[in-house]
Amino acid sequence: MKIQNDIILFYREHEAKAFLKRIWGRKPVFLCVIGVTETAKIPGISAAGKTPELTDYTPPADVEYLLLGKCICIPGVPVTPEGIPTPALITRVAVRLADIPVFIVGSGLRIEPRVPFFKLAGSPGRDIRTGRAVKGVKEVLSQAEILGTTLAKLADYLIIGESIPGGTTTALAVTLAMGFDTKGKVSSSMPDNPHELKVKTVLEGLKAAGLRMGDLREKPIEAISHVGDPMMPAFAGLVMGAARRIPVLMAGGTQMGAILAIINALNPDTLTNVAIGTTKWIVADRSSDLKGIVKQITDIPILAANLDFSESRFEGLKAYERGVVKEGVGAGGAVIAAIAKTRGTVTCREILKEVEEDYRRLIRIR
Amino acid sequence: MKIQNDIILFYREHEAKAFLKRIWGRKPVFLCVIGVTETAKIPGISAAGKTPELTDYTPPADVEYLLLGKCICIPGVPVTPEGIPTPALITRVAVRLADIPVFIVGSGLRIEPRVPFFKLAGSPGRDIRTGRAVKGVKEVLSQAEILGTTLAKLADYLIIGESIPGGTTTALAVTLAMGFDTKGKVSSSMPDNPHELKVKTVLEGLKAAGLRMGDLREKPIEAISHVGDPMMPAFAGLVMGAARRIPVLMAGGTQMGAILAIINALNPDTLTNVAIGTTKWIVADRSSDLKGIVKQITDIPILAANLDFSESRFEGLKAYERGVVKEGVGAGGAVIAAIAKTRGTVTCREILKEVEEDYRRLIRIR
Repeated sequence: MKIQNDIILFYREHEAKAFLKRIWGRKPVFLCVIGVTETAKIPGISAAGKTPELTDYTPPADVEYLLLGKCICIPGVPVTPEGIPTPALITRVAVRLADIPVFIVGSGLRIEPRVPFFKLAGSPGRDIRTGRAVKGVKEVLSQAEILGTTLAKLADYLIIGESIPGGTTTALAVTLAMGFDTKGKVSSSMPDNPHELKVKTVLEGLKAAGLRMGDLREKPIEAISHVGDPMMPAFAGLVMGAARRIPVLMAGGTQMGAILAIINALNPDTLTNVAIGTTKWIVADRSSDLKGIVKQITDIPILAANLDFSESRFEGLKAYERGVVKEGVGAGGAVIAAIAKTRGTVTCREILKEVEEDYRRLIRIR
Repeated sequence: MKIQNDIILFYREHEAKAFLKRIWGRKPVFLCVIGVTETAKIPGISAAGKTPELTDYTPPADVEYLLLGKCICIPGVPVTPEGIPTPALITRVAVRLADIPVFIVGSGLRIEPRVPFFKLAGSPGRDIRTGRAVKGVKEVLSQAEILGTTLAKLADYLIIGESIPGGTTTALAVTLAMGFDTKGKVSSSMPDNPHELKVKTVLEGLKAAGLRMGDLREKPIEAISHVGDPMMPAFAGLVMGAARRIPVLMAGGTQMGAILAIINALNPDTLTNVAIGTTKWIVADRSSDLKGIVKQITDIPILAANLDFSESRFEGLKAYERGVVKEGVGAGGAVIAAIAKTRGTVTCREILKEVEEDYRRLIRIR
């Protein structure tokens, strides 16, 4: 692991560096894929919302904040139950400082954002404990591929992030169904990672679907349909459509393991054009193991934004150093892209400064 | 009027030529804005669908065809009551031959297309005879402006087309409400333009809204709200967002008069970057007067694709020369852009040849 201009080359250092070189100074487009799953409403699963019921509002509110600097569908911004604000604050600062165009992609929403977004087919994800989590996976996948192909004509590379509460649990479920050993390896937006609850939830889902771990080794569409979430086919389709032609930075934490497994089964060739971009808080997390997940699937590089909020004036931001939230809304990837696009002119320190400004404004107006 | 490389410089010849020069060889993005209005279901108003009830399906079917080469929400493709096929055939050939990226923008749909599309706020337009035609105009306008601003960062210029059955009647209504003399000047997808029925419909709408012609001279938002359609604020917002930075070719017939009036009232400065691109069938039409509409509002150039279907092997395409359909789905502007992007390599003759190929395939599989 090597630190270079605020970017940690966390895994496959040589390839990570080559990826960074390819995108250095180039013009990206940032996408945020949003969706919801009832799985997030299982008490204790997700901290991506003040209460489990509010998780339906988190993805649309995140992207409203990202585009407008304020949320319309909720007052304030999405927060964890303890009041720690959404990583959309970081993403917004990054894309603003580097003037990176942003598009929202929605599949399976209950509440639609009040900003322009690409609507794909798909309906809100069911609780994975039903064993019938997502409808119309193939159609979403193929629509997203069309969109990815079109976007690849317009951008030098894509950064793709996501916001879906409960997403690490569905990621655990899909990877386990596909035969990867990810128990205890997915991260959490909470400081205490509820691994046991997640595994219990997944096992219930697999059982309901009549499946055992590894039964769907080469069958990602079935895995998503049974125990995944609607963000997954949208995200994977975008990557596959775009990465044929341009580099793609998958911006997220351990959920990217599920996306990687899906693409690796459907179209592994495109992965030569793909890296994972995340935050220091993910790669430094002792309660999860992104590298351990990626390694089992296929060896793509991992980069991480070396953000440090320990010196922040605000407790709400300092909390990120305690492992609350950690990642989301493509924050890590957006920061990496902001640094790369501006050839290092934008720095992690400057991003923290601007995030503090925005946060100060937010807590004032609330 | 001068003909140059298959493109007719129809109005403001000098400015039209300058516009063409600015976009020559540059890389555009094509947008198609879709929506519906109950106004299209008044018998005799629209031929953009086999029956009035089917007009809800025409816009989504048009854009499915445009992106996929086939419709999903209806069998076959949209046709007029006499079976003449949608101009989406022309648009698809144009963007395909010139490899122009396409995005769909939807506002106020009853049936959503089964392809990725930018969803904006807005609900299906009511019959304008209610005097309360469109809800949430301001929000649609501002969302579309955001989107136009973002797209302007990615394209050298935009071509924006539309598909909304009944759209010339709502255009007549909005322009009359705003005080322009457009009676007898809007075109029709039928060979016999039902001017009297349109005027009667509009006068009913104005009366229901308690308005007289010209009452909303500088009030386009009110005009749309009372007697417009949901495509209008989306289209106008996109133009205003993008044209601050890049040229915009408004691809359509006399409906563009209403869009022009709206923009001219809200943000006239952006119009220095705007031209209208349409078809020969519109500018040669004796039952309408695009130039007579534009002149009254503000003097922007008009270009027209010099398409000639008179020698087609197919009656369904020859019918375009009789004045059926004439324009739609941005066909004229897409052809102009295809010629401009390829620096004249793509020609109107080649486009007809390809349209015939696609049409042959279509009537075979039906």
